[in-house]
Amino acid sequence: MTSDDLAGFFARRDELDAQAYLELDFTFECAGDPREAAAHLCSEQSTAQWRRVGVDEDFRPRFAAKVLALESTPLPGGFSYPVPDAPRGAVHACRATVAHPHGNFGPRIPNLLSAVCGEGVFFAPGIPLIRLEDIRFPDSYLAAFDGPQFGVAGLRERLQAFNRPIFFGVIKPNIGLPPAPFAELGYQSWIGGLDVAKDDEMLADVAWCPLAERAALLGEARRRAERETGVPKMYVANITDEVDRLVELHDVAVNHGANAVLVNAIPVGLSGARMLRRHATVPMIAHFPFIASFSRLAGYGVHSRVITRLQRLAGFDAIIMPGFGGRMFTPEHEVLENVRACLEPMGHLKPSLPVPGGSDSASTLDAVCAKLGTVDFGFVAGRGVFGHPMGPAAGAASIRQAWDAIAARTTAPSPSRV
Amino acid sequence: MTSDDLAGFFARRDELDAQAYLELDFTFECAGDPREAAAHLCSEQSTAQWRRVGVDEDFRPRFAAKVLALESTPLPGGFSYPVPDAPRGAVHACRATVAHPHGNFGPRIPNLLSAVCGEGVFFAPGIPLIRLEDIRFPDSYLAAFDGPQFGVAGLRERLQAFNRPIFFGVIKPNIGLPPAPFAELGYQSWIGGLDVAKDDEMLADVAWCPLAERAALLGEARRRAERETGVPKMYVANITDEVDRLVELHDVAVNHGANAVLVNAIPVGLSGARMLRRHATVPMIAHFPFIASFSRLAGYGVHSRVITRLQRLAGFDAIIMPGFGGRMFTPEHEVLENVRACLEPMGHLKPSLPVPGGSDSASTLDAVCAKLGTVDFGFVAGRGVFGHPMGPAAGAASIRQAWDAIAARTTAPSPSRV
Repeated sequence: MTSDDLAGFFARRDELDAQAYLELDFTFECAGDPREAAAHLCSEQSTAQWRRVGVDEDFRPRFAAKVLALESTPLPGGFSYPVPDAPRGAVHACRATVAHPHGNFGPRIPNLLSAVCGEGVFFAPGIPLIRLEDIRFPDSYLAAFDGPQFGVAGLRERLQAFNRPIFFGVIKPNIGLPPAPFAELGYQSWIGGLDVAKDDEMLADVAWCPLAERAALLGEARRRAERETGVPKMYVANITDEVDRLVELHDVAVNHGANAVLVNAIPVGLSGARMLRRHATVPMIAHFPFIASFSRLAGYGVHSRVITRLQRLAGFDAIIMPGFGGRMFTPEHEVLENVRACLEPMGHLKPSLPVPGGSDSASTLDAVCAKLGTVDFGFVAGRGVFGHPMGPAAGAASIRQAWDAIAARTTAPSPSRV
Repeated sequence: MTSDDLAGFFARRDELDAQAYLELDFTFECAGDPREAAAHLCSEQSTAQWRRVGVDEDFRPRFAAKVLALESTPLPGGFSYPVPDAPRGAVHACRATVAHPHGNFGPRIPNLLSAVCGEGVFFAPGIPLIRLEDIRFPDSYLAAFDGPQFGVAGLRERLQAFNRPIFFGVIKPNIGLPPAPFAELGYQSWIGGLDVAKDDEMLADVAWCPLAERAALLGEARRRAERETGVPKMYVANITDEVDRLVELHDVAVNHGANAVLVNAIPVGLSGARMLRRHATVPMIAHFPFIASFSRLAGYGVHSRVITRLQRLAGFDAIIMPGFGGRMFTPEHEVLENVRACLEPMGHLKPSLPVPGGSDSASTLDAVCAKLGTVDFGFVAGRGVFGHPMGPAAGAASIRQAWDAIAARTTAPSPSRV
C-alpha cells in the first residue's frame, strides 16, 4: 500500500457516525510497519480491493473498516509463539481499535462472525498472531436482536429465588443412566435444595435415554419436589442436536415436563440459538463446548468474552462458562470479564445469568461469592452434589448450608458497623 | 484416580468393536503422570462419574472413551506456551489415540463436536495444552450422513471440465458494488476463461446488493457467457445468513440464476450446512472464516483437517481452504493434509473438491499444481483476476494460458521418455 492507500483505513472516532460502526479491540503481533499492518487488517476484513481497474471510484469512505487507535511496542525476541511461514521484518506487539461498518453485512450472526473472526482478521499480511479481544455494538445494531427472553430477573421470578445465587446441579453419572434412575437423582437434588437440575452437555436424545421419556420422568420428579418443598424447581433438558431438530426437541422437552432447555451454543451455532429464541417458551441455557479451542491462549484467537456477548445477543437467559479453580485453566480476570459481559448494560437487551463452573462444591461457594462480588450468578455443581458420599440430597443440602452461613454473616451486623 | 480406575480407560484396539467407536488422535502437554492425564482425558469426554454413589455399577465398559495408544516425551523446559493456572508437576509432550463410543451421542454434528472438541477435551485435569489432530469414522457412523451431493465428478460433469483444475474467481471489489457492475465483472471473468465466478465470503443479502437482483443479473451474464463460449459456467451466490434463512435464500438464489451456493461453514454452523444439503439442488461450496482461530498453532486447538472432514461429512461439494503462499500462514504439509481429507476414501461419501486459496494468480498455478500432484482441485484467484491491470477477462485468460502451458508440457513426450 502507498501512504495514501493507508490513510483511507484510518479515522478519528469523531469523524464517524458511531451508530454505523461496531468497535473491535484487537491485540496482534506483526512483522514490518505496525501502521501498514493495521491498515491491512482493516482492508482485508472489509473492502480489500476498493476500486475496479480503470474506474475512478473509492469504496473506502463507506465500506472500509478503519483504525481508530493503534499502539505498538517492539518485540526484540520475535513472535511470542512459533508461527508457520512467519513474515520477515521487525516484530511489534500492537493493540488496535477498529471501527467496522456493520452495514457491510447487517444484523446476521454468521455474517458478523465472518467479518470479525474471518479470513480478513486471521490472514492480514504481516499479522500471523492476532486475538479479537472485545466487541462493542451501537444501539442501532442491537435493536435488531431480541436478546434474552427472561434474563436474570425472569429466572429469579420463575424460581422465586431472590438476593442469592441460583443453585444448579448437573445430574451425574452424566451419561449411561436410563431415565428412571436419572430422574430419581434429579428429585433428590431438588429435595436437598437445588433450584435447577440439568442434563450434562453431553447427554443427547439417545436411544438409551430418550428425551421424551427423560423429560416426562424429570418433569414428574420436579413437580413432586415442588409440592414437597413448596418452592419452584427447574429441569433443564439438553436439546443440543442438529439445528433443524431444535424447535421440535424444545417442544418435546417442554410438553413432557422440562421447564428450561440447554443448548451447546457453538456446536449448534449461535444462529441456531437465535432461531430457537424466537420459538422458545422457556429459558434457554448455554453451555461452552468448543470455545476453549480458540480462547485459552492470551496471544491468539478470540477472547471468551466476545462469545459471551454473542450468546447474550443470540438470546440465552443463562450462560454456563469456565469458572474459577485450577481445572478450568482460566485466569480470574477472564472469569470476571465474562460475568460482567453477562450483566453490564447492552442496549435494550436483558442481562443473562452468568454461571461460572468448574469442579465446584459447598467448599468453594464462599470464595466464588467473594470473587464475583454479586449474587447475580448461577452456582453449578456436578460431582459436588451427585458424587457426595451421602448422596445428592445431602450434596445439595451442603451447598444450601454453605450459602446460609455466608448469608448469615453478610446480613448480620458486621463488627465494623456495630 | 486409583490405578484400577485408570485401567477402565485403556483398551487394546482388538478388544473393541471397531464399528462402535470414533478414533481421535490428540497431541497434548500435561503435568504429572501422562498415563493418568490420558485417563482423565477419556473420562472427562465420556462418563466422568461412572457410577452412582452407593450403587455397584460401572458405565465404563460401554460408555467410556478409551486410550488405545500413548507416547510421551519429557519437556524439561515446561509447557510450550504460557498457560494460565498451569498445573504443577513434570511436563510431558504426549501423543494419544482415543477410541470414543459414538453411541454416546449418535450421528449428530453438534453432539459430535461437543464430544471431540468440548469441555472434556479442553478441561481434562493436568492437560492445559491439547490439539485434536485427526478424527476417523467407522462406516457405521458415516452411513448416517449423505455427504456431498455432486462431489468432484459431479462438479466436473456440470462444468464439462475434465483432466484439469477447475478455475474459480472471487469477484472483486468484494463489497460495495451494486448488482449490475458486479455482474459485468463476472461476465468478463467467464469470457476470459474462468469456470466459476463467486461472491466473496463477506458479501451477504444486503440492501445495496440484494441477493435476488444479484443472482438474476449474474445468472443472465452467466448464460450469455455460456452462449458465447459454448461451455458451461457457474455462479456461486453467497447465501451465508441466519440458519433459518438458508433454505429460503438457496431458493431465491437458484430461482434467479445462481447454479451453486456459498456458505461460511463454521459461522453458519456445520449442522446448518447439513440441513441445507437435504434441500439443495445445486452444489454447495464452503468458505473458511473462523477456522484459523483454533487451527493455526501447532500445539493447541483443532487441526484444520478435522474441520475439512466434517465439512465433507456435512455435504459440501467443494471446500475453500487456506492454500500455499506466505499470506496464508499455513505450512505446506497442512495444505496437503486438507487436500487429502477431501479426496481420500471416506466410507460411501463422495470426494469434495479441495480449493486451496491465497493470493493466487497465473504466476502461482505451476507451483500449486506441482505441490498438489493432482488436477482434482479448484484454483481460486481474486485480485489475480479482478485486479489484473488489463481487466478481468485478461486476468482470467492469463490463468488459462498458464494452464495451457503446463498441460502442453506434461502431455508432450518428456525428454526422458523420448
